[in-house]
Amino acid sequence: MRTLIDLNADAGESFGRWRLGDDAGLIPLVSSVNVACGWHGGDPATMRRSVQLARDGGTSVGAHPGFPDLAGFGRRAMAMSPQDAADACLYQFGALRAIADLHGVEVAHVKPHGALYGLAARDAAVAEAIVEAFATAAPGVLVVLLAGPVAEGLAERGFPVVREAFADLDYDDDGHIIIEPDPQAKPPQQCAEQAVAVLRGAVTSTSGRQVEVDADTICVHGDRPNAVAVAQAIRDRFATEGVTLAPMAEVASSRR
Amino acid sequence: MRTLIDLNADAGESFGRWRLGDDAGLIPLVSSVNVACGWHGGDPATMRRSVQLARDGGTSVGAHPGFPDLAGFGRRAMAMSPQDAADACLYQFGALRAIADLHGVEVAHVKPHGALYGLAARDAAVAEAIVEAFATAAPGVLVVLLAGPVAEGLAERGFPVVREAFADLDYDDDGHIIIEPDPQAKPPQQCAEQAVAVLRGAVTSTSGRQVEVDADTICVHGDRPNAVAVAQAIRDRFATEGVTLAPMAEVASSRR
Amino acid sequence: MRTLIDLNADAGESFGRWRLGDDAGLIPLVSSVNVACGWHGGDPATMRRSVQLARDGGTSVGAHPGFPDLAGFGRRAMAMSPQDAADACLYQFGALRAIADLHGVEVAHVKPHGALYGLAARDAAVAEAIVEAFATAAPGVLVVLLAGPVAEGLAERGFPVVREAFADLDYDDDGHIIIEPDPQAKPPQQCAEQAVAVLRGAVTSTSGRQVEVDADTICVHGDRPNAVAVAQAIRDRFATEGVTLAPMAEVASSRR
Amino acid sequence: MRTLIDLNADAGESFGRWRLGDDAGLIPLVSSVNVACGWHGGDPATMRRSVQLARDGGTSVGAHPGFPDLAGFGRRAMAMSPQDAADACLYQFGALRAIADLHGVEVAHVKPHGALYGLAARDAAVAEAIVEAFATAAPGVLVVLLAGPVAEGLAERGFPVVREAFADLDYDDDGHIIIEPDPQAKPPQQCAEQAVAVLRGAVTSTSGRQVEVDADTICVHGDRPNAVAVAQAIRDRFATEGVTLAPMAEVASSRR
Repeated sequence: MRTLIDLNADAGESFGRWRLGDDAGLIPLVSSVNVACGWHGGDPATMRRSVQLARDGGTSVGAHPGFPDLAGFGRRAMAMSPQDAADACLYQFGALRAIADLHGVEVAHVKPHGALYGLAARDAAVAEAIVEAFATAAPGVLVVLLAGPVAEGLAERGFPVVREAFADLDYDDDGHIIIEPDPQAKPPQQCAEQAVAVLRGAVTSTSGRQVEVDADTICVHGDRPNAVAVAQAIRDRFATEGVTLAPMAEVASSRR
Repeated sequence: MRTLIDLNADAGESFGRWRLGDDAGLIPLVSSVNVACGWHGGDPATMRRSVQLARDGGTSVGAHPGFPDLAGFGRRAMAMSPQDAADACLYQFGALRAIADLHGVEVAHVKPHGALYGLAARDAAVAEAIVEAFATAAPGVLVVLLAGPVAEGLAERGFPVVREAFADLDYDDDGHIIIEPDPQAKPPQQCAEQAVAVLRGAVTSTSGRQVEVDADTICVHGDRPNAVAVAQAIRDRFATEGVTLAPMAEVASSRR
Repeated sequence: MRTLIDLNADAGESFGRWRLGDDAGLIPLVSSVNVACGWHGGDPATMRRSVQLARDGGTSVGAHPGFPDLAGFGRRAMAMSPQDAADACLYQFGALRAIADLHGVEVAHVKPHGALYGLAARDAAVAEAIVEAFATAAPGVLVVLLAGPVAEGLAERGFPVVREAFADLDYDDDGHIIIEPDPQAKPPQQCAEQAVAVLRGAVTSTSGRQVEVDADTICVHGDRPNAVAVAQAIRDRFATEGVTLAPMAEVASSRR
Repeated sequence: MRTLIDLNADAGESFGRWRLGDDAGLIPLVSSVNVACGWHGGDPATMRRSVQLARDGGTSVGAHPGFPDLAGFGRRAMAMSPQDAADACLYQFGALRAIADLHGVEVAHVKPHGALYGLAARDAAVAEAIVEAFATAAPGVLVVLLAGPVAEGLAERGFPVVREAFADLDYDDDGHIIIEPDPQAKPPQQCAEQAVAVLRGAVTSTSGRQVEVDADTICVHGDRPNAVAVAQAIRDRFATEGVTLAPMAEVASSRR
């Protein structure tokens, strides 16, 4: 069983008048936070608040770029070319980085959101365009992708890819996550159980099969109503199991 | 008469399916280009093309952030707080900078667009919030503001402000520019005449008065149908008058 | 004291993933509901739900068009021409009407939202463009405007204008309402008190002066956290005072 | 060979500052026009102008709703549920209808745009949700769908479906059209030839096969640079062949 892992959360997904998630409660509980950058959620003021919460909580910051789809919260698949997907990620990453610079905070990683994440997990050309764009424009910035063949292939080619698994999503037999458009509360202990399973190298699919997974970071969704309780349960369980949390850069470098 | 000046153009204002302006013709004719960053015009692919054109043409690149108003092309006044205005500028600047990094191009300045520019010219708190944000988050990046008391005040306090005048817009007696929502073609010689007037230190207002102006850079609007002819006429006239074009950083530093 | 009044609520202001307000609790408590139409809040699915709640609760439905400003929730002033403002109202009204037609529900009125409402209250040309557009394109549809000189002038010219007062907003000495960008909970009894004051013909301004007001309808904001309690308190107080609630069409026609 | 047909054009696809297509030239040449409704192109002022041009030119008006994707001009596939697709069509149709009411113009049909059209052609559940929504909310309004099995199935069930073929797009062997994200000029005579082929009941696919097609209306895209020349060539050729143009309602009713 692995004993060093990053716990990351999608957060900063409020938008204007609308509030979503308990960022103040959640961000200090995780070692990395993925901050929405305005296309599916998040606005400059929210981004600023998220960066401040991360700085105060000692949480590493990454960008969480999504499809340009506020109405669908970036969870509706869109046909986007590899170059457009890469440009979308760079645009949003850069926007967050400039705001983070206000507070002296580094943006250390990028993790596509929702259906853009799903596209990068299924379409190797999209994932490749993203990692190549960042290798050129922002060398050293880690790219978080679903743990699986696309991520493995890019990691083997030397790209700074971080492989992700999920504590709060179901898996199908092919190792794909099952996205909920509107996440409901989930029993925190069940999520903690799945997080430990990830560390042991396999999760149980919805049909009861064991699916191997090899991950550097584990995600909790900030828009799940009980996200804070889920993150806390995972932390508590990790403490019991002797697992240490660390930002994904540390975890990834420890494995090389 | 001044003999060193920057000539800048607003460009990169196409959006998706819609084309606006002859960027390939205009960008090489100016010493600085202000690239739209997605909120009033410009999309990541257009930004990428603009940056490439600037790199190939030896033109210095700046960000041209606008209000979040595609339908109004950022030319409708919006009530935005100083902090929101500063965040909007940083967000868009950062987005462009990440895309420019793809091509090894520096983003050397920021110039608010349209009604956001007008707001910064009239409301000193907005202009101050913008220059302070850049001083913290992107030190060294020049902020282009309408030549006038707000810009002077900030320059005197040591902020890297570039003062701008317009070759292709009319002035009122108070030295304010008169914005056209939908610019029409203008006689190039008339614009060249006004550019020279700027170098001499005063323009003629619509009522016939002389209005003093002290500027480091002169603007041509890329969405004017004959923008390329206007820019060419100004260049030709400058050549005749012995005026040298240089990016705004050079012009500004020559004056300190 | 007037004994027949409409109580209206702004509702349906969720958007995509984001929830705002307790529409299921609030809509049945009021006699008219103003449904957001997508530009500042509200999306087609939310509009559909709002219409269903209104139909089930016996509440009269109106459109609540706003500025095209999701990030600012339509509460930031925008410079919009009278014709653009009228077109914006018609566009959003028509969108809601088509969705209401699905459920056999009439859209009986239109009430501009937020800063567009404020613009129509201050700029008679904007209000006039709106009422004229509706008189042509949707005759019989009532237009709700802030009780005051602009509304009075249009009503005197025969336009079907409904004059509105606010139970949950403060007034200044000029009879203008003071908009809160992000409304906080307010003591329900205080709002009920102000509602009764409206029926008596005058409200107390923030400086303590009596400001005359003559209104056909009283508004409660659905995005105030305790909106349901506010509406309930007003209803209870009205019951005590012998005031009857009726949709604004009835109230307006009773006065002619 | 059929001798009565509707010729329709997608138009009104300008947006704010951006102009697209020669609506004034094209709209009078066709018997029906599909007016963009704001989500992929078109804004209220453009919609108003399109309606006026159609009224002046004696052209029948329909709504042309698209995905909410200005940046992609509605030509990028999006995963949208059948109900959301139906709501999106109703919303945009209603918006146009209210503006058309200003000018006393009827909105007689609805034709989904771009990738939404493609979705309805491939996914029968989406097409069915749209025709059912209109049957309830706007009975009598014709729904234009790609001539093919989905449209046939709905027409057989009695829905007022209009079957469409394309004069200016290529077909593959399965009878699907090949969408160009950024249409280029096409030889007008070639388009006229294909229009006549449609009337004869079969078009030639890109691989040279004959593909049967049975259509009530033939489309010309307004954003093709030479759209006016294409429409004129089709009209001229139809005149030579003795083919009469009529709005789609007439064509459809002549076949029942």
